[in-house]
Amino acid sequence: MGLVDRERIKLATLQRKIGPALAAVDREFQRITTGDSPLTRDICAHILQGKSKKFRPTLLLLAAQDDDGFAPAAITAAASVELVHTATLVHDDFIDEAMTRRGLPAVNVKYGPSAALIMGDYLYSTALHNLCAAGLHHAVELLARTTVLMSEAEMLQLEHRYDMAISEDRYLQIIHQKTASLIENACRIGVSFNRRLSGCEAAFGDFGAHTGRVFQITDDVFDYLGDERRLGKPTGQDWEEGRITLPLIAACRQAPPAARARLDELAGRRGREERAACWPEVRAFVTEHGGVDYAFATARRYGEAAKEALGPVASGPQKDLLAVAVEYVINRLN
Amino acid sequence: MGLVDRERIKLATLQRKIGPALAAVDREFQRITTGDSPLTRDICAHILQGKSKKFRPTLLLLAAQDDDGFAPAAITAAASVELVHTATLVHDDFIDEAMTRRGLPAVNVKYGPSAALIMGDYLYSTALHNLCAAGLHHAVELLARTTVLMSEAEMLQLEHRYDMAISEDRYLQIIHQKTASLIENACRIGVSFNRRLSGCEAAFGDFGAHTGRVFQITDDVFDYLGDERRLGKPTGQDWEEGRITLPLIAACRQAPPAARARLDELAGRRGREERAACWPEVRAFVTEHGGVDYAFATARRYGEAAKEALGPVASGPQKDLLAVAVEYVINRLN
Repeated sequence: MGLVDRERIKLATLQRKIGPALAAVDREFQRITTGDSPLTRDICAHILQGKSKKFRPTLLLLAAQDDDGFAPAAITAAASVELVHTATLVHDDFIDEAMTRRGLPAVNVKYGPSAALIMGDYLYSTALHNLCAAGLHHAVELLARTTVLMSEAEMLQLEHRYDMAISEDRYLQIIHQKTASLIENACRIGVSFNRRLSGCEAAFGDFGAHTGRVFQITDDVFDYLGDERRLGKPTGQDWEEGRITLPLIAACRQAPPAARARLDELAGRRGREERAACWPEVRAFVTEHGGVDYAFATARRYGEAAKEALGPVASGPQKDLLAVAVEYVINRLN
Repeated sequence: MGLVDRERIKLATLQRKIGPALAAVDREFQRITTGDSPLTRDICAHILQGKSKKFRPTLLLLAAQDDDGFAPAAITAAASVELVHTATLVHDDFIDEAMTRRGLPAVNVKYGPSAALIMGDYLYSTALHNLCAAGLHHAVELLARTTVLMSEAEMLQLEHRYDMAISEDRYLQIIHQKTASLIENACRIGVSFNRRLSGCEAAFGDFGAHTGRVFQITDDVFDYLGDERRLGKPTGQDWEEGRITLPLIAACRQAPPAARARLDELAGRRGREERAACWPEVRAFVTEHGGVDYAFATARRYGEAAKEALGPVASGPQKDLLAVAVEYVINRLN
């Protein structure tokens, strides 16, 4: 059994607690992505074939669950959040010229760049329209704000491509906006439906933001670790595409001048093939100079902060399940 | 004085009636597109350099103006509608591989395809977020619905690329969704702020939808007419890129079999250069077989329908100005 399967099983334990609600989210997702044209339907069917971990809907539902179960609006909102997430994947794969997604050809590869661009637009706007149609104004506002932050983060990432001088703060800003803010708002929206936890929206938002940071940092660490841990994806993608992430930022700071000078020389190379050629050396540099350890420690610190953010929330099975969700994200690294 | 200038002057006569409000829309547009990163700000500044005709904000404001002038919310909404329109231009130019926009290099040319994709996302989401922040839920819902329709139309257009069998009905569906629906909702949103005209939203929506059809059909006719009438753009772009529009659809229907067979032969060609090479023959075919006349007559019929849609609205300067707006769109052809 590979790590990918073990990962899914661990998350599945958590998801079994909310199985019927997640199944309802799947049905809602399919309902709102029926599409008007054959090509839209075809691409939607292709996307649905690639299994999502449904991490964001899971958190939203865990936050939403109260003594009466789930408000129907929580199902609608969870499907819309997953839709926004899917839209960002389609557009990101275009930007990164990714070949595959969830073991299938990426939309930009199978259907071309124009279809990928339009499909992302379609998924974004369908998500927001679906929330509007359900009268969920608060969720619309939170998600609209998040999509602004996400697109600004994509632009920042483009600006800092190949930028070895990027600061840790700027890195943290980018991962907050591009990844953590959607998870933050999934949690905020979820708890907004929870009658038992009114007034806890800020705490759940902080919980989600920290959990989202853990999620992205561990993802970035995977890019420096072995194949199996990368959940089926090759390593070195970030380096090849010029994304300077926390493990490399930290290693550069901690390396002696000679090693740093050599790395700067490699970092001056452009083009995927040239960069791929020196990937083993870059990976060794990052590991040797503590970049992976530093990023891992940072992720763990955010994981603790996530659990602490739930301090004001009364103890109980809900709080425990959310803590398990954070552990799941952190332990992807162990 | 070229046609471009004459066009602007005619629209300017209309816009002079609402000059201060349009200036406020410009300020609001600039305020909400300040951007978080230097690159976002740079691209926003580039976009602002290319002067927009501001046709959609003009209609919105004409619909919104009541005895007290304009609700501040109308200014916010007009800027957001213009923002959505700008987002579609940025994404469309990417899809069409356009080189220029409003006399300047297109965003995809000057900043690259990734920046164009992100910029479109940024403008879309900023428009919706701005409306949410102002509490304009009705406008958010109408615009979210419109952006779904627009992206579905883009997908339909992609599917029907090079499709000589496309029906007039399918063409009309595409132009409604991609162009008319935004103008329709600009008018609906505008009148929703007008205290004197509560209950007229459907009539204004119909007016806008018909006016939008006129707008797109005349645009498509320009692509078959001379350079000067094309407002500075070259002709034959639709043909080159495989967009089969009303003049060609009508000409094919009206042409004798031999001429139609020859056209089908030309239509089988792919690649811009090959298609550009036979453009003079295609243009002659469309003109000779009444395609331009048919499209022009259709546009005029929609223009009449637009004016009739305002039947339930009491006579007065507002109704007159909206009729002038339709005349402006139709007379771009005369």
